[in-house]
Amino acid sequence: MLTVVKVGGNIIDDEKKLASFLEVFASIGGNKILVHGGGKIASTIGERLGIAPNYIDGRRITNGETLKLVTMVYAGLINKSIAARLQAKGCNAIGITGADANIIKAVKRPVKDVDYGYVGDITETSISVASVSLLLNAGLVPVVAPLTHDGNGMMLNTNADTIAQELAKAMCKVMAVQLVYGFEKDGVLKDATDNNSVISEIMVADFDRLKSDGIINGGMLPKLQNACAAIQYGVSKVIIGNAMHLPELINGTAGTQII
Amino acid sequence: MLTVVKVGGNIIDDEKKLASFLEVFASIGGNKILVHGGGKIASTIGERLGIAPNYIDGRRITNGETLKLVTMVYAGLINKSIAARLQAKGCNAIGITGADANIIKAVKRPVKDVDYGYVGDITETSISVASVSLLLNAGLVPVVAPLTHDGNGMMLNTNADTIAQELAKAMCKVMAVQLVYGFEKDGVLKDATDNNSVISEIMVADFDRLKSDGIINGGMLPKLQNACAAIQYGVSKVIIGNAMHLPELINGTAGTQII
Repeated sequence: MLTVVKVGGNIIDDEKKLASFLEVFASIGGNKILVHGGGKIASTIGERLGIAPNYIDGRRITNGETLKLVTMVYAGLINKSIAARLQAKGCNAIGITGADANIIKAVKRPVKDVDYGYVGDITETSISVASVSLLLNAGLVPVVAPLTHDGNGMMLNTNADTIAQELAKAMCKVMAVQLVYGFEKDGVLKDATDNNSVISEIMVADFDRLKSDGIINGGMLPKLQNACAAIQYGVSKVIIGNAMHLPELINGTAGTQII
Repeated sequence: MLTVVKVGGNIIDDEKKLASFLEVFASIGGNKILVHGGGKIASTIGERLGIAPNYIDGRRITNGETLKLVTMVYAGLINKSIAARLQAKGCNAIGITGADANIIKAVKRPVKDVDYGYVGDITETSISVASVSLLLNAGLVPVVAPLTHDGNGMMLNTNADTIAQELAKAMCKVMAVQLVYGFEKDGVLKDATDNNSVISEIMVADFDRLKSDGIINGGMLPKLQNACAAIQYGVSKVIIGNAMHLPELINGTAGTQII
């Protein structure tokens, strides 16, 4: 079983939580891949560099300066810190981006109403299953920064959730895969204000009803839509829950299991 | 034959030269590893971030802020740009540091007269020959940023010349290795002011004479000392010359061959 774990920016930003998370991530067995988000540190460093976040109509734009910034922070600072810290725990991490070993070749998002800049769109066919398999078969643990490349020498900014999802979808053609979205809440909540109201299991067939009942809404909607798509594609299960409880998410005693 | 190529910061800093160099590097056959220096861009970005270069008695110190800076710039910005650009030329590059796949585990330089900070000292035994072999056998081309780790979760700053040298020395125990130091001059010069005075071949046995004659001096002295040590250790040859003429350096029609 390959476990693809996405860990969000809020945990990356919180030194204590990140330390706990890396501890549990290192402890889980089998093949595994960690996909990490960016966190707020890119904005903090961007401010110090005089690179302002760039928005058009409320949508974040990756201009040339921002691409350099996120390449430095995501692929340099965050990715290497995680790799070194996992190595210290005996986890043979290799920190990479989509450019490395041509793991993920993206397409620069076409300009329609908005020019998003250096943003890479991917599908499961963007993943080099051969390259990922090769690293896994060598006993390595890929730690993937949320960056891809266009095959013409340009790095691109790609959402970490999407990378985790497409990695899981691509790899499930050659091995059993489970996908874990680790974040700060304990799972999909019936009542967003009550962390004890975790829905422990969602069947893909129930998704439309939960959506029309308003139980799944806001930021959880695309996450679950993607989770359902991954299941339909062949991923064994998708688990959403508290990143600190990774072993429990995997053994089914915590979080929301989408099956 | 494994070719380990070190390319210096002056070339990294010069967009046109870097493009030419990557073109020729991609074209050379056999197993290969690229070790790149840092260039001046780290200082430029450091200035914008308000991180001043830190010197004690003329020696550069890597404090915590500087370590973060070089991790961002060397392992992020420069390393990923090179990896993406080599991929565009059909060269299956994988950009890494010493932390990744535990390729190079260094020792933080002990504090004697000077505390150099987060600087990693290495020898040939610091290299994981198994990890490097594994990447090479998979057809990958490691692109190594001048950073290592201490095995306890900390990244360390390590000289790129030293990394190239110790990689070559470690790997020559399992395969034939040649080591190329690519820089801006055409080779070791009899007359430092005349780029046409390249000494085409230096025997290790001649080194002391050339040194006492004053032909080898300044910055070339440690480079050649290291080159001789590498040869004595079992590296097939060491070549010093113009990085733009990489194929000619390798086929022996340019540069200085140390044998």
